[in-house]
Amino acid sequence: MRIPLKAAATAALLAAASPALADQLIENVEGLRIDENGEIDRFNALWIDDDGRIRQVLDREDKRPRQVDYQLDGQGRTLIPGLIDAHVHVMGLGVAQLTLDLSDTNSLEEALAKISRFAAENPSRPWILGRGWNQERWGLGRFPTAEELDRAVSDRPVYLARADNHAGWANTLALEAAGVTATSEVPAGGRMERIVGSRQPSGVFVDAAEDLITRAIPAPRPAERDLAFAEAQKLLHSMGITAVADMGTTIEDWQTFRRAGDRGSLTLRIMSYAAGADAMELIAGARPTPWLYEDRLRLNGVKLYLDGALGSRGAWLKQPYTDDPGNTGLPLLQPAELRNIIVRAATGQFQPAIHAIGTAANAEALSAIHEIAESYPGDRRWRIEHAQIVDPADLPLFGEHDIIASVQPIHQTSDRLMAEARLGPDRIRGAYAWKSILDAGGKLAFGSDAPVESPNPFPGMAAAVTRTDASGEPFGGWLPEQRLTREQALAGFTADAAFAGFAEGRFGRLVPGERADFVLVDRDPLLVEAAELRETKVLETWMAGVRVYSAEE
Amino acid sequence: MRIPLKAAATAALLAAASPALADQLIENVEGLRIDENGEIDRFNALWIDDDGRIRQVLDREDKRPRQVDYQLDGQGRTLIPGLIDAHVHVMGLGVAQLTLDLSDTNSLEEALAKISRFAAENPSRPWILGRGWNQERWGLGRFPTAEELDRAVSDRPVYLARADNHAGWANTLALEAAGVTATSEVPAGGRMERIVGSRQPSGVFVDAAEDLITRAIPAPRPAERDLAFAEAQKLLHSMGITAVADMGTTIEDWQTFRRAGDRGSLTLRIMSYAAGADAMELIAGARPTPWLYEDRLRLNGVKLYLDGALGSRGAWLKQPYTDDPGNTGLPLLQPAELRNIIVRAATGQFQPAIHAIGTAANAEALSAIHEIAESYPGDRRWRIEHAQIVDPADLPLFGEHDIIASVQPIHQTSDRLMAEARLGPDRIRGAYAWKSILDAGGKLAFGSDAPVESPNPFPGMAAAVTRTDASGEPFGGWLPEQRLTREQALAGFTADAAFAGFAEGRFGRLVPGERADFVLVDRDPLLVEAAELRETKVLETWMAGVRVYSAEE
Repeated sequence: MRIPLKAAATAALLAAASPALADQLIENVEGLRIDENGEIDRFNALWIDDDGRIRQVLDREDKRPRQVDYQLDGQGRTLIPGLIDAHVHVMGLGVAQLTLDLSDTNSLEEALAKISRFAAENPSRPWILGRGWNQERWGLGRFPTAEELDRAVSDRPVYLARADNHAGWANTLALEAAGVTATSEVPAGGRMERIVGSRQPSGVFVDAAEDLITRAIPAPRPAERDLAFAEAQKLLHSMGITAVADMGTTIEDWQTFRRAGDRGSLTLRIMSYAAGADAMELIAGARPTPWLYEDRLRLNGVKLYLDGALGSRGAWLKQPYTDDPGNTGLPLLQPAELRNIIVRAATGQFQPAIHAIGTAANAEALSAIHEIAESYPGDRRWRIEHAQIVDPADLPLFGEHDIIASVQPIHQTSDRLMAEARLGPDRIRGAYAWKSILDAGGKLAFGSDAPVESPNPFPGMAAAVTRTDASGEPFGGWLPEQRLTREQALAGFTADAAFAGFAEGRFGRLVPGERADFVLVDRDPLLVEAAELRETKVLETWMAGVRVYSAEE
Repeated sequence: MRIPLKAAATAALLAAASPALADQLIENVEGLRIDENGEIDRFNALWIDDDGRIRQVLDREDKRPRQVDYQLDGQGRTLIPGLIDAHVHVMGLGVAQLTLDLSDTNSLEEALAKISRFAAENPSRPWILGRGWNQERWGLGRFPTAEELDRAVSDRPVYLARADNHAGWANTLALEAAGVTATSEVPAGGRMERIVGSRQPSGVFVDAAEDLITRAIPAPRPAERDLAFAEAQKLLHSMGITAVADMGTTIEDWQTFRRAGDRGSLTLRIMSYAAGADAMELIAGARPTPWLYEDRLRLNGVKLYLDGALGSRGAWLKQPYTDDPGNTGLPLLQPAELRNIIVRAATGQFQPAIHAIGTAANAEALSAIHEIAESYPGDRRWRIEHAQIVDPADLPLFGEHDIIASVQPIHQTSDRLMAEARLGPDRIRGAYAWKSILDAGGKLAFGSDAPVESPNPFPGMAAAVTRTDASGEPFGGWLPEQRLTREQALAGFTADAAFAGFAEGRFGRLVPGERADFVLVDRDPLLVEAAELRETKVLETWMAGVRVYSAEE
């Protein structure tokens, strides 16, 4: 159901932002959009109605409206559709903005110094929380330990999430606060690292075992959640992002989004995927919610974790890890559980979004969808999140059921060397194989997995186009046969990401009737060199005809 | 914050109801309202604007608007403000509409026959649930047993709530499904009845002990909740009720209300009091929600249970029960807990609504408010729910802090004989002592405690005015010095109930600017005989200028 909300949230927004809603013309831009046929179309001006929707897209020679209330001279700058991140953890990103970030540390010692400094600067926090460490980047060759972390902070519990969010590192006080000992029962689907030659916990907890510590961390207060969410919106808008798919929305997250919506401060569009089937039902009831707050919020479906991550060897593979021959990783759901949840979702017209990283996980997700799809016909848009390592034998199923692979191009540049070590030279052919998925008839949507990676979409587009990292490595691109066109990369972060969330016609392409969400950038992403594409700067971000970010402010 | 929602929910409502929103005139009625000075005012016509608000209240001689889009001839019928129930359990009422009702049974045998019939008529329900039994009414002189219930249903678990909702009756299969045995640990604040001369559970569970069984009952599915809520709205509108205070809103209840709001099917106004401080925070965050859906929903505060009920001797008394000399009942919160929750609520501008039945509970609630009120100045509207048995020595505190006694006049007629047995002749002077509370400077708001009692407000008004029951007993009224005027009774179910929920200016009085919520009734409640007042029939119920109930349909 689509309620023609006339004033409400937008009116409140406008009290803060300018200009007031009325017909307006964004004139003299180098506009790029995805037209009604899914083709790139260039235009010169946007006519926006007083609901913040596109009324008309004008070429240079088109007649202008006789009178509009507001007119903006774009001064020939490049205008593109508002960017959409198809896989982000909104509240995680917001909380990360308020916590310690170790993602730029290059050694254990550097990390310990940063942790110690942060603790000193935040004396009132009962726990020190952070994220972003990566023992591979540090060249450590092993996980860090609680004892090492005690050297940085010994007066309070500390818990730090690994860069991939699939492991965490605790100090001794955190172990004590959580009551974790050598005899603690480790949840299925998880692993507690132990001191070599002993049963004692070493301080790192993988996948489901993270719960041993995280359950002891005091829950954030609502005011902190509201602040975190505001930070997330601000950061995303500064990167040109106007909409996201939130992957794993809890009831607390949802209430935070609604508080923002109810109070008129929801500026981001959120396509929400609940953290499990119970959360889905609690949030939405028997059916997805309507689009709320003028197409700013909808509970679309449910996020499921079928396996862990490649970095922590939690990804579930058909064959053992090349660099850990006894280990194939773990399924986090049994076959019957997975199918039950998919059926429960499909019965209510909810979209399942299945996290699958390893070859076995992808095969299992594809096979479950294949079994169930026939009984649930219609436009389902089954989603596999990450679809990271796919056995080429399994690719055809993507096409058979129009399955959407919701992938994160930037992961490919971050993970390349690690993935080669984990998978060896043969399996790597099915890794991050986006072109192959398209060729098999599957669909793509692009995202960042923020806060696992930066939500900046331009390095992601560049990675999809070049298969090289920010240093241009490897020369010629990694598995260059998987390179996509610039048009595909732009669509992946706009129209295709909207389609993946049933949002076409509402936003994502800048066609008449859609919300006027757009970004002014400092270069033309379809024309500049690849290295320059990566460095694209956002000048202004507009939502429904209202400016929500300006680089000059 | 008050958002001038122009269309949204109302627009959707109107798709179903007539007439479409536009200026309209309700002409030729015998109108009664509470005017700007809190006085009863009689009028002849209502002019309603296209937002569904009162534009002008017209007397017979006042000039009519030159043009309105719709005009209704009231044919001289009596029009009163939409009635407000200041204490109801909305979802409990809705679920009760879908479950077995034993409140009309006069003996154990009659009840068993009705239970057996209901089970046969509902073969697919995994549990048989119901409510409304009362061993006092049955003249049983003791609680019924599981064994007796087995005679009615032995193929499925059965659990039936007592009329006061403070005890429940299980059959043997329910005990088994819940794993309850002689050695089960009984939660503090509760009592498990046992077979005389044995430790075996007899089948009845009082107050907190009810959890031993209820935790085993499968949670209703969202579609069932939506249905139950629709039933509750329908029933309430049929009794002239346009707004309620929901006492003990869980997150599931709240999501049900929001689903209705989001889909345009929320026709009732709900002032919500969360089921405890955690639910309050989860639902609303750090502050009460804004008024949502055009003044149809707001989370106002938190409902706390300080004691149980009088019937099950769970009410907390200063001195022992007259008919159970070893027992003073139980406090359900310790002094520090109570004060902590009140402070937590007050810090966020939430309203605490404290359930207090017995003399000790009321003294404790009053004293906690007294201690805290000074640190939290401003317009707080502290609420005590029921305020049923107050030690006269404690009355002055009602006036000192403008405390609102949210009382249920109909309870007085249902409870009279039981209360006399429980309390004896002296303490009874402070029972249901509404006039004394007013005289002490306190404020009143009236409700029904539905589904504990019928939500029909007219018997409640009659009880407040006459202090007699439907048979006119006792002659001259019970504690007749506590009788209120008809004007006070009408205000208790309208303006005063709105004030108790911070809703004045939005609804409750029919003053210009307020929502046009009104009821057409078949007699004038200020003029008819008391016995006739009790029998008042609702002809039509209107919400924001839209008819939501007609007796003729």
